[in-house]
Amino acid sequence: MSTKQESTKAQERAEMQRHRILDAAQQCFIAHGFHAASMASIADTAGMSAGLIYRYFENKNAIVLAIVDRQLQLLRENIRLNRRVDLAAEWTQNYGRSCAAEAKGMNAALLLEMSAEATRDPQIAAALDHYDTTLRAALVDWLTGDPQAGGHGLPAAIAPYRALLLQCLFEGLKLRETREPDLDRALLSSALHEFIPMLLKP
Amino acid sequence: MSTKQESTKAQERAEMQRHRILDAAQQCFIAHGFHAASMASIADTAGMSAGLIYRYFENKNAIVLAIVDRQLQLLRENIRLNRRVDLAAEWTQNYGRSCAAEAKGMNAALLLEMSAEATRDPQIAAALDHYDTTLRAALVDWLTGDPQAGGHGLPAAIAPYRALLLQCLFEGLKLRETREPDLDRALLSSALHEFIPMLLKP
Repeated sequence: MSTKQESTKAQERAEMQRHRILDAAQQCFIAHGFHAASMASIADTAGMSAGLIYRYFENKNAIVLAIVDRQLQLLRENIRLNRRVDLAAEWTQNYGRSCAAEAKGMNAALLLEMSAEATRDPQIAAALDHYDTTLRAALVDWLTGDPQAGGHGLPAAIAPYRALLLQCLFEGLKLRETREPDLDRALLSSALHEFIPMLLKP
Repeated sequence: MSTKQESTKAQERAEMQRHRILDAAQQCFIAHGFHAASMASIADTAGMSAGLIYRYFENKNAIVLAIVDRQLQLLRENIRLNRRVDLAAEWTQNYGRSCAAEAKGMNAALLLEMSAEATRDPQIAAALDHYDTTLRAALVDWLTGDPQAGGHGLPAAIAPYRALLLQCLFEGLKLRETREPDLDRALLSSALHEFIPMLLKP
């Protein structure tokens, strides 16, 4: 094998290890809360030594920042705002799923705890701010976009506050997920089907 | 002094001690997160021995339950839904205030962490469920109430989902407070002044 091939393999291996650590950390944060999860418990869940984890991440905060970053990637794929989508139906259907243990995306409890931590930790605040700015800009693009291309043709003057309301409503639902897992889905569906179209109308 | 007077004094004293412990606990939870705050740090902040605290509260969870209960009392006073109120103006004005250290009501970060904890702890889930049920019922009463008496005269069939949307929007704003303290208030005001009247219209 050439040196170049070997270095690519080493990089791939490192990337896999990082993913394994982040998966374990996310699992620990969801189960015990962000503060209660220790580097030792993350190492235990990942089936690695704590020493090995410190080779990839300096501390717990570095892991959280990497999780936020990974979420941003996921979000970019998930929102798929380049297509016409029935948001009301999709949000109703997804309600509660992010609290399931096997869920792949951002767990609702973890989202809340990270947000709370932003009031205490400037690095986490900056990471979430970057995430939010990206999401808001994508929403504005989608709202102002050409309807032929999956957009909604909203005037640029009103799109920013429609985007803010959509974001608040979405995040409010995430908070509801943690507190009201048995929420009546028919009620939710009626509510969203009346109001989301109003937010999307020019 | 009569025995009855003495016993009333003892009760008042106990009530004051409980309040002092809860104030200290809330301060610790806000500063360090729910999980990171220990009974020892709460005792330290309250200027009491940990032993004395255990006379009033069995464990940290008992303190959290008491804080939820106190919040429910505060909420009942705060929402004052028996009057016509400009919700959009009030929510804009209050945005960010719950994150200030001196804030008296429910701190946004604490609200998020308690909600996250509801996914792990059935007692906290039950306490929050009771809180939510009370709030939702009060909202429905306000929405269906006689406009002469400060209500909005909404039909009983649509009031429940309007109440759900108001709740999600309010909670979404709480999450925003933690992540976007510098949110443009003019943008927020425009957004709420367009959207909230739609939710209140029969």
